Amino acid sequence: MLIDTRYSLVSRVFQNRGTVVDVDGVPVGGDEVVVMAGPCSVENEQMLLTTARFVAAHGARILRGGAFKPRTSPYSFQGLGEEALRMLAGARDETGLKIVSEVVSPDDVELVARYADMLQVGTRNMQNIALLKEVALARRPVLLKRGMSSTVEEWLLAAEHILVEGNPDVVLCERGIRTFEHATRFTLDLAAVALVRRLSHLPVVVDPSHATGRRDLVPPMSLAAVAAGAHGLILEVHPRPDQALSDGAQSLDFDGFAGLMAELRARRTPQPLTT
Amino acid sequence: MLIDTRYSLVSRVFQNRGTVVDVDGVPVGGDEVVVMAGPCSVENEQMLLTTARFVAAHGARILRGGAFKPRTSPYSFQGLGEEALRMLAGARDETGLKIVSEVVSPDDVELVARYADMLQVGTRNMQNIALLKEVALARRPVLLKRGMSSTVEEWLLAAEHILVEGNPDVVLCERGIRTFEHATRFTLDLAAVALVRRLSHLPVVVDPSHATGRRDLVPPMSLAAVAAGAHGLILEVHPRPDQALSDGAQSLDFDGFAGLMAELRARRTPQPLTT
Amino acid sequence: MLIDTRYSLVSRVFQNRGTVVDVDGVPVGGDEVVVMAGPCSVENEQMLLTTARFVAAHGARILRGGAFKPRTSPYSFQGLGEEALRMLAGARDETGLKIVSEVVSPDDVELVARYADMLQVGTRNMQNIALLKEVALARRPVLLKRGMSSTVEEWLLAAEHILVEGNPDVVLCERGIRTFEHATRFTLDLAAVALVRRLSHLPVVVDPSHATGRRDLVPPMSLAAVAAGAHGLILEVHPRPDQALSDGAQSLDFDGFAGLMAELRARRTPQPLTT
Amino acid sequence: MLIDTRYSLVSRVFQNRGTVVDVDGVPVGGDEVVVMAGPCSVENEQMLLTTARFVAAHGARILRGGAFKPRTSPYSFQGLGEEALRMLAGARDETGLKIVSEVVSPDDVELVARYADMLQVGTRNMQNIALLKEVALARRPVLLKRGMSSTVEEWLLAAEHILVEGNPDVVLCERGIRTFEHATRFTLDLAAVALVRRLSHLPVVVDPSHATGRRDLVPPMSLAAVAAGAHGLILEVHPRPDQALSDGAQSLDFDGFAGLMAELRARRTPQPLTT
Repeated sequence: MLIDTRYSLVSRVFQNRGTVVDVDGVPVGGDEVVVMAGPCSVENEQMLLTTARFVAAHGARILRGGAFKPRTSPYSFQGLGEEALRMLAGARDETGLKIVSEVVSPDDVELVARYADMLQVGTRNMQNIALLKEVALARRPVLLKRGMSSTVEEWLLAAEHILVEGNPDVVLCERGIRTFEHATRFTLDLAAVALVRRLSHLPVVVDPSHATGRRDLVPPMSLAAVAAGAHGLILEVHPRPDQALSDGAQSLDFDGFAGLMAELRARRTPQPLTT
Repeated sequence: MLIDTRYSLVSRVFQNRGTVVDVDGVPVGGDEVVVMAGPCSVENEQMLLTTARFVAAHGARILRGGAFKPRTSPYSFQGLGEEALRMLAGARDETGLKIVSEVVSPDDVELVARYADMLQVGTRNMQNIALLKEVALARRPVLLKRGMSSTVEEWLLAAEHILVEGNPDVVLCERGIRTFEHATRFTLDLAAVALVRRLSHLPVVVDPSHATGRRDLVPPMSLAAVAAGAHGLILEVHPRPDQALSDGAQSLDFDGFAGLMAELRARRTPQPLTT
Repeated sequence: MLIDTRYSLVSRVFQNRGTVVDVDGVPVGGDEVVVMAGPCSVENEQMLLTTARFVAAHGARILRGGAFKPRTSPYSFQGLGEEALRMLAGARDETGLKIVSEVVSPDDVELVARYADMLQVGTRNMQNIALLKEVALARRPVLLKRGMSSTVEEWLLAAEHILVEGNPDVVLCERGIRTFEHATRFTLDLAAVALVRRLSHLPVVVDPSHATGRRDLVPPMSLAAVAAGAHGLILEVHPRPDQALSDGAQSLDFDGFAGLMAELRARRTPQPLTT
Repeated sequence: MLIDTRYSLVSRVFQNRGTVVDVDGVPVGGDEVVVMAGPCSVENEQMLLTTARFVAAHGARILRGGAFKPRTSPYSFQGLGEEALRMLAGARDETGLKIVSEVVSPDDVELVARYADMLQVGTRNMQNIALLKEVALARRPVLLKRGMSSTVEEWLLAAEHILVEGNPDVVLCERGIRTFEHATRFTLDLAAVALVRRLSHLPVVVDPSHATGRRDLVPPMSLAAVAAGAHGLILEVHPRPDQALSDGAQSLDFDGFAGLMAELRARRTPQPLTT
């Protein structure tokens, strides 16, 4: 039923050993739970630096921040573009955090790759084949979000589109799927994380911020994601979530982030079940 | 709850009169139910011409045929590209049918627009903003398929991305949404057709072939679509469905297509309820 | 994949000829599109009689009205019980309409069967096996609504539970399934109607009122249901929808009902495609 | 949007302190993660006793086992009925485990309550109001499974139906919801667990066996459930899963169960985040 594992570069049949993706020195897919954190959108230099310093001090390894936003409405904030990328690079220089940022158009890949250490393909573009090919050629690790209504099989085949172009450095990201339940923004599918770890050698991380859409559910779902076998987390953090230009309701404030990082450290034990 | 109709170019508040999109002389959105028909993919000149002649003789006005296919797997048939476009143009010259063909990458828009009378944006690309902008600038009518897990609101906002760039000629296409029910390939959402007709002045057509995935359900769902208010249908037709390179199970054979066209003519009466 | 047709009483393999269910003289499953209409809940004698006279005058054959309501919250209006059944019987005496009413508990089956000509099993009880057995034994035709998240296969197997107890008089009713789309209350699955007609000999009707939750979508979806092959419709009609105790937003007023019935008559032609 | 917390007996506004349900001496809702384990159906005395002894020896506190099965098809195994209940009581006498068993009909409540310490209401019956009322009156703790397509709000309102009848001892059980993804049997919604803990004082447990339908996913999802805040787990365990009369593919064998219990003990630390 699922993906034909004999011919698939992403499958454990092709390569049983788990892939560790090297994001300019930060290994994703190994024993460490890698935390990527930062604001939904880069809004200005001040907020970005404040956030970067704080998340770095509490254990994050990668800074997330949107420069190009794929918005549903043409009238929503579209991101600051290259200006935001320069701010992200500045924050990297100061904090040592690596940078992940989304690319929404094949034409922007080269630009984003000039600044970012890892390229994010968002949920709306998981089957944007032209974009997948372009990020594959950029020779940067790729964070491939699951389409909000894509099956696990389609998700792995989207990764296959990147591997087949010669780029093996793909990190999968579960971010919630669309269901009838609207009490949370999406339905976080953690069984898909456990399933992907059995089917594929690629690392997988979880985005509980977009999945739940509720700040108060981010900590328990982060712990659950790690328990299910996630190699990392990508979290929205904002110094003043109530003033964020996008996704404020799901962003952790600084106290919330610090508390969660302390929890993660306290619980972390080796995971014999989920190798 | 739904789209803010005051500021939306797609809404009936902005423009109450229904838009009629002119596809090089074929009006979509008026009284006539426009039938677009043809094979899923253009496979070779012979099968394309045979099909084009047959569907033209039975009342189709527009020839559909894939030159660039957005495939889930990198190992599936990707389409014949420009060669297919040339064949489509040849079939137009002979039959008088207009041509609609899908474009999957911003870089291909200019090429496809050189041959096709209408550009199709597929379900996987409904929120591919870079592609929406490029097709808007191509000054060709656009057939905008609903994302398989997009809400009606997101679908209308995707159309808004095209209108806001100055291209008013968008035809919406309902093609089934993803649900738990897998007895049909997707769940055809005809209430969305009726709803879109109330919210928007844009024409809307229905694709029962992809929605159901079963040849035997295409005729009843075509009749139902027209009764729900659809301005047209887009149908997969193949001379030998059992030998098709893609989507054979849902393609009508010639007899099936001729029978359906006869049914549509027999039932067609003015639609006072769905203006 | 679907239901094993060899052993199923509901299947066309077991019985190819379409079943016509006789609701005390009204045939459901034949050439006539049977309209069942009335208020969501029976609220008082006056409104029930007014509604019954009106719908009878415009072509309805069966009066619907809830006496026992299966409510999500324990604090919602639960229906008037036997008092409502007596009012329904009174309306039958005056108008000649037959009566269909929902039964929500096995213990109430005998009581409801004493007054109603047809017993309705609601969407929340489609897999309530104890209730299915009890209605089977009551020797009344059964209107079996599809569970709002049940597959077509599960729906047919629920009917099988009734047939296997010796009651062959089951009318299936599609009433919308639960999906991510909330612009309509549910997603009306008309392809399921066409599919059921191919798989089973049982008649099938459609409830566009609950499916859409919007009065303005009831007429187009009624026409679409008939075009898809439905043998009948069940419609909520209320003299003053804005004052209804339940489901007012989806109830037609008298003008709306009269207009729809005129449309249905105008379009009705034999259906060679959907035998 | 969600349940009106002011008037709801299930809400934290009505009662902030978490409810601890006493299942004849086993507290559910306190600090201990309570494990309920056993076969899907009680098949015979030998297999039940073997299983009961094994799960008790490895830390389970409650024995699960179906006597009455709510089957989709009338031709599936329906359970051994009272004979199974007697076997369950025998296993209790020998092992000290408490008993939870499903009741599918109001008429069976008294019978099941005579043998079982806790009554289970299954997913297909979550809105079977007649059954909810009858189990409320039986004065036994109730395990209330979430409907496979019920919202969190509807689930809490179903519990409200029990509380309002005077029975406060309800344990909620998340068991997966129906979505488009069929690589797992259902989609386990762990964010619903975290959400329910915020909205309600009732304890909540998780059934990863039915949710995933795959034995290999049960251990990681059990750990994830506990991390998300679940007060317990209900697990299918069978001495020979390949020979089970129902649900073999999702049943743990003895080694799998023992391994999971060891994992759970190793990871268990206090949960300051999820009080």
